[in-house]
This record gives sequence, C-alpha cells and structure tokens, in this order.
Amino acid sequence: MKNTFGSSVAVTLFGESHGAAVGAVLDGMAPGVPVDEAFIARQLELRRPCGTISTARREPDAVEIVSGVFEGKTTGTPLCILIRNTDANSAAYDRDLARPGHADYTAHVKYHGFADYRGGGHFSGRVTAALVAVGAVALTALRSRGIAIGTHIARCGGVADRDFEDLRADIAALAEKRFAVLDDARGEAMRAAIEAAAAEGDSVGGVLETAVTRLPAGVGEPWFDTLEGQLAHILFSIPAIKGVEFGDGFALANLRGSESNDALQMENGIVRTASNHSGGINGGISNGMPLLLRCAVKPTPSIRKPQETIHLTTGERTQLQLSGRHDPAIVHRARAVVDSAVALTLCDALALRFGTDYLAEK
Amino acid sequence: MKNTFGSSVAVTLFGESHGAAVGAVLDGMAPGVPVDEAFIARQLELRRPCGTISTARREPDAVEIVSGVFEGKTTGTPLCILIRNTDANSAAYDRDLARPGHADYTAHVKYHGFADYRGGGHFSGRVTAALVAVGAVALTALRSRGIAIGTHIARCGGVADRDFEDLRADIAALAEKRFAVLDDARGEAMRAAIEAAAAEGDSVGGVLETAVTRLPAGVGEPWFDTLEGQLAHILFSIPAIKGVEFGDGFALANLRGSESNDALQMENGIVRTASNHSGGINGGISNGMPLLLRCAVKPTPSIRKPQETIHLTTGERTQLQLSGRHDPAIVHRARAVVDSAVALTLCDALALRFGTDYLAEK
Amino acid sequence: MKNTFGSSVAVTLFGESHGAAVGAVLDGMAPGVPVDEAFIARQLELRRPCGTISTARREPDAVEIVSGVFEGKTTGTPLCILIRNTDANSAAYDRDLARPGHADYTAHVKYHGFADYRGGGHFSGRVTAALVAVGAVALTALRSRGIAIGTHIARCGGVADRDFEDLRADIAALAEKRFAVLDDARGEAMRAAIEAAAAEGDSVGGVLETAVTRLPAGVGEPWFDTLEGQLAHILFSIPAIKGVEFGDGFALANLRGSESNDALQMENGIVRTASNHSGGINGGISNGMPLLLRCAVKPTPSIRKPQETIHLTTGERTQLQLSGRHDPAIVHRARAVVDSAVALTLCDALALRFGTDYLAEK
Amino acid sequence: MKNTFGSSVAVTLFGESHGAAVGAVLDGMAPGVPVDEAFIARQLELRRPCGTISTARREPDAVEIVSGVFEGKTTGTPLCILIRNTDANSAAYDRDLARPGHADYTAHVKYHGFADYRGGGHFSGRVTAALVAVGAVALTALRSRGIAIGTHIARCGGVADRDFEDLRADIAALAEKRFAVLDDARGEAMRAAIEAAAAEGDSVGGVLETAVTRLPAGVGEPWFDTLEGQLAHILFSIPAIKGVEFGDGFALANLRGSESNDALQMENGIVRTASNHSGGINGGISNGMPLLLRCAVKPTPSIRKPQETIHLTTGERTQLQLSGRHDPAIVHRARAVVDSAVALTLCDALALRFGTDYLAEK
Repeated sequence: MKNTFGSSVAVTLFGESHGAAVGAVLDGMAPGVPVDEAFIARQLELRRPCGTISTARREPDAVEIVSGVFEGKTTGTPLCILIRNTDANSAAYDRDLARPGHADYTAHVKYHGFADYRGGGHFSGRVTAALVAVGAVALTALRSRGIAIGTHIARCGGVADRDFEDLRADIAALAEKRFAVLDDARGEAMRAAIEAAAAEGDSVGGVLETAVTRLPAGVGEPWFDTLEGQLAHILFSIPAIKGVEFGDGFALANLRGSESNDALQMENGIVRTASNHSGGINGGISNGMPLLLRCAVKPTPSIRKPQETIHLTTGERTQLQLSGRHDPAIVHRARAVVDSAVALTLCDALALRFGTDYLAEK
Repeated sequence: MKNTFGSSVAVTLFGESHGAAVGAVLDGMAPGVPVDEAFIARQLELRRPCGTISTARREPDAVEIVSGVFEGKTTGTPLCILIRNTDANSAAYDRDLARPGHADYTAHVKYHGFADYRGGGHFSGRVTAALVAVGAVALTALRSRGIAIGTHIARCGGVADRDFEDLRADIAALAEKRFAVLDDARGEAMRAAIEAAAAEGDSVGGVLETAVTRLPAGVGEPWFDTLEGQLAHILFSIPAIKGVEFGDGFALANLRGSESNDALQMENGIVRTASNHSGGINGGISNGMPLLLRCAVKPTPSIRKPQETIHLTTGERTQLQLSGRHDPAIVHRARAVVDSAVALTLCDALALRFGTDYLAEK
Repeated sequence: MKNTFGSSVAVTLFGESHGAAVGAVLDGMAPGVPVDEAFIARQLELRRPCGTISTARREPDAVEIVSGVFEGKTTGTPLCILIRNTDANSAAYDRDLARPGHADYTAHVKYHGFADYRGGGHFSGRVTAALVAVGAVALTALRSRGIAIGTHIARCGGVADRDFEDLRADIAALAEKRFAVLDDARGEAMRAAIEAAAAEGDSVGGVLETAVTRLPAGVGEPWFDTLEGQLAHILFSIPAIKGVEFGDGFALANLRGSESNDALQMENGIVRTASNHSGGINGGISNGMPLLLRCAVKPTPSIRKPQETIHLTTGERTQLQLSGRHDPAIVHRARAVVDSAVALTLCDALALRFGTDYLAEK
Repeated sequence: MKNTFGSSVAVTLFGESHGAAVGAVLDGMAPGVPVDEAFIARQLELRRPCGTISTARREPDAVEIVSGVFEGKTTGTPLCILIRNTDANSAAYDRDLARPGHADYTAHVKYHGFADYRGGGHFSGRVTAALVAVGAVALTALRSRGIAIGTHIARCGGVADRDFEDLRADIAALAEKRFAVLDDARGEAMRAAIEAAAAEGDSVGGVLETAVTRLPAGVGEPWFDTLEGQLAHILFSIPAIKGVEFGDGFALANLRGSESNDALQMENGIVRTASNHSGGINGGISNGMPLLLRCAVKPTPSIRKPQETIHLTTGERTQLQLSGRHDPAIVHRARAVVDSAVALTLCDALALRFGTDYLAEK
C-alpha cells in the first residue's frame, strides 16, 4: 500500500519538500468529529522549527482543507488537506551528491534518477507536516472518548528528562509546551547541548517517550496486527526513527520474569496491573493500562561538517559540504509527528474493533 | 488482515497450543523453489526446546505439507503446512486464572471467554513453529539469490555475545548451532545464567541480533512500507518481543550526526558505506549494505514463583503458582522465528519490487 | 493478497484438486458463533455432484476442523478447516495438453510449469468446497442477526425458473433443495436439458440469482469498496462465473430513469423503496431493502467432444478428447458457493461497519 | 481500504461535488512516465458534458499537479492531482429530500447527516474527473508497453453500436471521438434517443464495451484477485454501473461448452485462441488475447419528472421535482472513466507480476 496506512481509518501522504505542496488524505474517520483549524495550526506549530535549535526555514504551514469537512465537522468521507510550500530554496541541493545518512542514494537506485531530489523530495521530514495536520483530527476524535496522548523528549544531547509520573497531568502539561520536556531545567540543558552541536556544524539525536491514557482493553490482534506491530509500522516511517520499544522494551532483556511480569489486580471493579512493564499491551492487545512506547531518533543527517561521499552519476569520490538550512536536532520537532502517528493508528484499531461510529459524534 | 501478513508474498497463521494443530499458509511464493523437508525439520529443530534450559514439552514437530508443493518444488499457489499437537497437557491450565505477563486477560476481554485458553491457545509461542516451517521455504528462496540471514543471541541473562565480525562466515557458523552464539564460551555463560534462573523458578530475557547479507539496494518504501516498518510489524507479533531497532538503534540517540552518518564510497563499482550505523536502510529503502536489526525479548512470563493475579470471572484476587512445563528462557528458541519472519518479509518486499518471478527457479 | 479476501473477516483458500486436501482459514469471525458440523456437511452436500447431471467423482467431503473452534463455538481466532481428497484419479490428466476453457495454459505461463496440473490443481472447482465449509459458519453468524441468503438457478440449459416472490419463504424453501429452483417443474426441464447435453458429450451454462434479506442499511462504501464491488470481487473468483449484476443489472440499460428509480417510502417507521431495481444498494451502500444479484455461469469447459488445442511444451497442434469425470453443468453446484461467498463478504462488511462483536454471541 | 484501490499501484480519491475540489493520489506508478498535461486535459474533455445531451454544468476541469511529477515525468512517489470546483450551484439541492436512485438516503444512514449533501457530495460522478486525470497517466504508462484500451457505447437508448472488428483500428478511432461509437450513424440515433428522453424530463441508460490489446499472458490470480474480480471491484464504484461481464458474459449462460470453449492455436510462435468467448481471461489470468468486458450503466437517476420520496428528518412522504442541471444520459461520459479504471487496475496487476519497473521509462 506504500503511501497509505490503515484499514478502517487510513492516511495517505503525498508531496515533496520543494514541490508545490505536501498533503494528506484521511479516510474512514468517523463523521461528526469537530475540525478545529486553530487546533490543527497549534499542532503544526509544535512541529515547526524553533529558535536557534532548528532550521532557518520558516513557513506559515497554512493548511487548506480540500475535502471531507462540512459545516465544521468531518463528513465521514475522505478529508484531504494541503500545505503549500512557500519557502523552498532549492539552490542548496546538488542533484548528484548523495548526502550521507539521507535517502539520496537509495532513492536514486529505486527511482532511477526521476525522483525530485530537491530537499529530499518525498523523503523529506516536511511531509510529516501533513501527517500532523490530519493527526490533529485523530487526536480530537480520540479525546471524545477520553483518550489522551502525550510525548516528551526522554533524552537528547546526552541529557535525560524526568520520567512520566502523573500521566494525565504530564500529558496535559506537554500539550502546552513547544519544547516537550517534563522538567524544564533539563529541557534547558538539552537546548544547550543542541546549540553546542550546532556551533560545531554538527547535530544530535534523542529518544521520545509517548504515553496514551484510557485506551480501552481488548484492542489489537495477536497475529500479525499487534498494537505494537501496527504502531511500529507507522512510526518507523517517520524519518530518523531507528528504534521502537514498548513498556520497558530493551531493558526487559536484563530483567527476570519475576521482575517484568505485571501482577493483575482489581481496582474499583476495573482490572489494573500493579506495574506496567508491558506498556499496556499483552499478546498484542491493549490491557486497559496506559500504553507506553519510546522511539529512538537518530541525529539529523544534515550537518555542516565536511563529509565523504560519491557523485551519483560518475561514481567518483568527492567531499560534501552542506550549506542549506538544517536542523541540529529534530527530536523536539518529531514529537508532534509521533503523537499524530499514534493517534491515527489507534483510531484505526478502535474503528476495526468497535465499528466506524465509535468515534463519531453522538 | 489480522493473521495474514504480506502483500505479494503473504503468510497466514492458524492453530492453538492445545488444539489439533498449528499451521501456516504461504501464499505468493515464487514457483520452482525446492522444498527440502529435511531443511524444514532442521529449522524447526532450532526452535525446539533444548536440554535443561527449555520446557519439558517434547514434540516431534512433524510437518505435513498439505498443498502448494508438487514434485518437490513450490507450485506458486498457496503452500499450506500443518504441525499436529501431540504432547499437549492441558491439565496444568486454569481457565479463570489470568497469568501475569501473558495474554490471558486481554484475550478474555477481546474474545468474551470463547477463546481456547489452554496453553495460551492461539497466543502461544507454539504457533511460531508454523512460521518457522514456511520460513524455511522463504530462506531457501532467498538463498537462490545469494541472500543469507543469521541471528545470534547478542545478550541473555546478563551475558553478552561478541559482535558480528565477518558476516558471511558468522551467518554460516550460526546455521550449524542450536544455541546461536558467535562465541561459544559466552554461550556457556548464558546457559549457566538461564539454569540459575530456572533453579529459582524464574526466567530471563535477552536480545537477538540479526544480519542479512546481499540484499539488493532499492527495496522498501519511504511511506509507510519502510523496510524497518514492515519488519517491525511482523517481528512484534512474535510473543515476548517488546523492542526492535535497526543499525545502531537506540544507541544513535547518544551520537552526533558526524558520528552516525555513513560515508558513501565506491568499491569495485559498487556503492558501499564506510560504516553501517543505519543498518543497511536509508529512507526506508535498502542501500545494499548488510541489514542489521536487534529484537528485545522479555523474560518468559511463565515462572514457577508464586504471583498475584485475579480470577477472570469473579474478579477476586488470588495467588497463582504455575506448575506446567515452562521455558526459563525463549531467546535461544526465538532465534529461528526471527530468521523466518525476516525471510518472509524480504521475500514479499523483493517480489513487490522485482516481480513474482524474482525468486523463481530459473 | 491473492488467496486471502476480506479485511476484518477474511478467508484464505489453499489446496489442489488432486493434492492431499483443500482447505480454508476463516479469520476475524466473531467469537461465540455456534459451529454446527451437521450444517457444514449439509452445505457441502449442496455443492456435491448429484445423480446423472454431475461428475462421477464422489467424495465424502469430510471436514476436519483444525483450529478456531472450542467447545462447539468459534473462538474469534482463525478457524481452519481441511477437506481431504480421497477420490482423485489423476490418470485422466495430461500435463502437456491445455484444455480449452480451462486455466491450463494461463497457469503454465504464470507458474512456468511448476503448478500441479492434475485436475486443474489449485484452479479446480474442488477448492470451492473449502469456501462452502467456512461459508456455513458465516451463514450461521448472519442468521443470528436475522440475515438470510438464498440462491436459485434462474436459468439453465435454456429453461428459466420463476422469479423470486415471497423472498423469506423462497429462501427457506431453497435451503431444503439440492437442485435449487423455485419451481420444481422448471427444475425438471433444466435437468432434462443438462442430461441432453451430457448425452452429446457437451455441457450447459446458466444464471444464478441470489437474494439477501434483512441486511441493515448503511453498509458498504462509495469508493472503492462498494457492496457491489466487494461482492463481485469474490464472486468472479468462483470458476466459470463471467458476469455479475445487481438489481436489474444489464436490463437497466434499456430502461428510462423514471422506470428504474426506486421511489422512497416510509412503512411502519422504516424506509422502504416501492420497487427494487437497484437491488438494495445505492451509492455502494445497502439501503435496507433485499440485496439482489445475479451471476452468469459459463458452460463447464470439460466436455467429451473432441477439441482443438496445443501441446504446451512443443507448441504443436493436437486434438484433445477428455475422458475423465466431468460435470455437464455446474450451475446447480455453484449455488452453495455463491451463498458462501456472499455470506463471507457480508460478515466482513458488517464487522467493518459495526465492529468485530456485531455477529458475536450475546 | 475504502477510498484507496490497488496494491502496488494504488489510487486514492477524495473530494465532493460542491466542495473546494475533487482530487486523486496515484501511488506506486513507475518512475519516468511522461506526464502530458494536454493528454490529461483531452481525457477529461472526453468525460465532460457535451451539447444538448449533457448537464449544463460547465467547468474547465483545470488540473493542478500537486506532487509526484518532476521535469515532466513521474517521480515514482505519489502523484496528487486537484481539480477545483468552480461552477457549483448548491441552491438546487435540498438537504432533507432523498433523491430516488441516488445515495442520499444511504449516505444519511451511514454518515448520520454529517456528509456534504450538496450535489451528492463525495458520491457525485464529479469525483470521477479525478480518476480520469490519473487514469491518463496510467494509459500513458501502458502505451509504453504497447497496451491500448478503448471503450465504445455498445448500446444506449435502445440503439446498438456495431461490434468491435479490427480492435487496434477501432481503439485508435475511439480515441478521437467525444461520442464513442464505432458506427457514427448509430451514434446519431443514440443522441436522438437521449434528446428525446431529455425532452420528457427523463433519462436513459446503456452498455459500455471495453477492449484491451496486447496485455501479456500470465497476469492475475486464481483466488481471489482474478483479473475479472479486480476490474469489477473498481468498475462497480463508478456511479450508475450495475453490471459487469467479461467475454460473452451473460450470453454464455445460453451456450454449450462446445460453443463457448476457445480452441487453442499456435500462430507465429504465439499461443492464440480461435475465438474469444472468455474475453482474454482463463482462471482469472490473462491469456494474451484481447481483454473484453462490458458494463451496464443505469439511466441517470436525476430526472425532471416528479418523483415520490420522503423527507429524511421527518420521514414524511413528499414529492420531489428536481430543477438543477442534470444529464439525460451519462453512458457517453462514463466511457473515459471506465478506460481509466481499467488502466489503473492493469498497471497494478502488471507491477505486481513483473515488478515496479515494468512500466518505467527504459
């Protein structure tokens, strides 16, 4: 299916970094979901470059709703949004020089040189703006069922944020922050680390941690559409994400079963687990506890430091010195993209489980 | 699609741990691929319990080829295999006690009590035997193009194996080993750690690391069917896997771009990268370098130590003391399952890219 | 997806005419649906050859339920059934002679000679036995919501049955008949026509007409998963079906809009249409009226009359004189297959619309 | 998948009749296919209303290419096109009156009143303009392999066109005609019949017949993705199509096997059939002969004659007298839509069979 993801609720992405626009089609969303353009704009704002720790590319990210919204609410038919590219400067890109860490070489092999190479074309992180725009609608739909999603920068530039504590309060607080940390002092340390890397023409990576509250139990499949598998599928298409883990993830490798099992308890008639090492998922299916996941974000591959590479046509070795506008980190920007990808996937899983009216206005 | 995965080459799983059989349908495999029952048996042997570090359940795992093979080769039409359950002992399972760390509770919510609870039913790791059987055919098909896959136990019970060095030699060596480590001495230390946990009625987790050599460049998609996303999708349905990372994965979060970018080079007319932090994938598409991934395997949830849980029908708190046959570790058994899942996914991606004859006998 | 059809409720087919077995996996069916083996057997009986108007191949069609049923009801996990081939006589088939009207030549091109050619292999109508077996479960599930499906032989060998009149009574009557006509006298005339063709070593075709009652309104999609499109998709894979129409179908081409539009009315609080030229579907979505469709069934291509063909390997012209067991008509046998295909498709569409519990036991 | 169709080459549709625009995303098309805006415009011209036999709605159908085209050729990444609505007049539509023969009532049930009702919203035939625009790219891609598609009005308003004779010449001739008949005199009679119906405030239906030449043998699947099934799936989502048949279709019901079987022959080293009753498809797979199919098009449901209907909110009976701009026939306009749907489906089937480079520029 390539650029389309989801079964009952599906998203299709299109567009290139330096083409006319990027956009998305959100298909299968329940009818009657309020579409608040101000909320979409705010979500896009969270993804936009900020200050000295981001690219100098500045675009208003004005969203045009092309279809699927009528009288301020979703119609139930495909919702298409467009975000025009207005600040693209292609001069900085050389068609024949493959940037290390980017998809220039793989795109060249796959598309035989026909792909739009400017700014990474369809591989650009710019395409995620469209994902965030339709993700905002998904987040609104989930909220009607009390489901909330929040992502913080768990680690960046060698600095760790504090862990989630009171999930609902933490998620609410994150919604208000452009630089999504739970502990602002640590956030300042992260920004300093990013700026230090930028000063050297370099970049840093990080880890994003996401929590979802009030997801009902019983959603997901054992084979093959586990919640983990569906979420990882879409998350790995966010550029720079190279690892996804749920609950304690890779740390589980060092535990014993007696430490990693979550004891089941009954609390006011609701089944809960005493701990949440499994991240709210057992056997691929939600258990009613908060869903917890983490994504590894590699350092931005575009750096100003000189790099070795080859000329795509001649094959000759050459040195690359990037001069365009680049992010010394994208982990803080990717946060809104992760929220959107998770929201869209959960809308799909919920609609498959409970029907296409589950998220519809009552 | 639930129990079916793949587009051009797809696998469907069915069966329960204590039902009549587990099985798989492999659909879309190229015609003319030799089906060597001895090789299938050997792959199943790699997944089977071994000695004191595995469950006492012992079944011959005899594979019946029901369809799709004619005169020793794949026909191109669906290949169905069955593995009968012969050593199932259901007495040890209590319908109403949800085992912590298992899918008992989530299955109860999703299937309203109708699912076969015995031995975990359809959620059981036993279902992976069927995946391994058809995975053996996928591995054979890939070998016809020179593509090899190998997985070792990178970490288990606190012991780390050595890293991959000479990939092709390492993969060849792993194919001969039931306990898949590159350094046998460290393997002995792992086994000792597993036995120590078993002696305490406990279990351990680990990390599996997989390498794929000679995968051609240009396979995979930017959105949403990245190679990472497709592989993670199927890998997360292997019971106990809670994390998947590619290349340096989570370690990338601590690097700078100048450290994590892989410089492009030309070597005898072939594009190579000087390092392989990206694990052979850029922008979701293979770059011709070895594909590298790691899976986090949680400790086996079935432990003999007493655990807190609830009675599924009454909701009352109770203590659970498992007495059945259990694995103190499954990381060494999961290795063959990971190889199979990776092989099936790559067959699909290659067929989508190069057509359904790509892996066919010439 | 090839041998898998459906999104939320999906069926996978496997097997060859003269291999070990044919079978099916029914995935996503709601939990708690009673699985009545006698009803499955009866549905298979409707598909089996009968008397002088069918092939002499006689098999008990004993169904083995391999998975997905526990304590007599569906578990909600994949239900696999197997039907062993016990009466296959392959001697009559020549590997190199392509039978006109069959898939021998196209299979040869597609599978490069590796496909099991015996009795048509995977292309054989025998595979539909497996579809009928799982279709019986789908029919049971639909019945729990009051939805009934019935198919009659509208035309065969130049003889027409009467039209549907009282749909619910007609469907109930058809369920009791092996030769599914509404007017038994016309059925006798059809049988005579079939026997006349058989006596000349020839075969006849026909038209099947299907009605579905009490399908709720609001099921299906405008693009592209119209109810018509989904049903036609699966119906065209039933061997010999070469045309599918809904409501008045091709006859609509000769009407005027004022004749073909169905006036909307309110009847006891329920919206009804005065006529049903649209066959219960508008804009791809059910309107609450009976769903009506017709399938064109071509004459059985296996005839005893000599035919011109080529030798697949040498390409030489040759004459073919079939001597195996053949059906002089399959229209009466295909009826149970059509019912099953329609039932499976509607289960899928209903589960997508109303969730996976819609057909579950309450 | 709803508004997305196809596996390797997929199309997604969006938009409403009286919203901002209609549009399509074409995903998976091979890179390097020339995108000729004049050819797209000409194809759209074939779908546009003409003279006195069509609606008075007149829009330039200006196509904006939003993505996926670079330097005049497809990039291989999603190609999005937009067609703005400029001549929408919503005043003629009453939100609460369900037009007989339209999807107003079913949309109301499915979308709970949130759908854009104006001009049929997303159900409008206007959405097919977007399908035609991307279909033009698919037709261009097929042409690079010598594959041609042509559709004529086989029957309309009681008048029949002549049959196809010299397929390649006929297809070439049809490409030049706005009113697609093989015999212009009969076309005049059809137009007179349409005008006669229009004069009475009524409408007529018809039959479209399509031929595809030089499709290679071996494309399609036995279960479930037969060429017939895939084509019918998309064709039935074209508004007004209520029947699809291949080869002799429903007429086969009246033939004997000895009449309907196509004898195989060898002609200059190429396998051919003496007749083509099967329409170029056996067992769901192309046999190298021309693909032939026919679609039944119902009379346009929008007529000026008064009709009985109900008020959607109150349920009261009422009379409807449509006053907007309506087509007395759409069969001549649907022709370009059928060509596009067929072309897109064949691109997908070919890419699945031969890989994503099959239609790429060499």
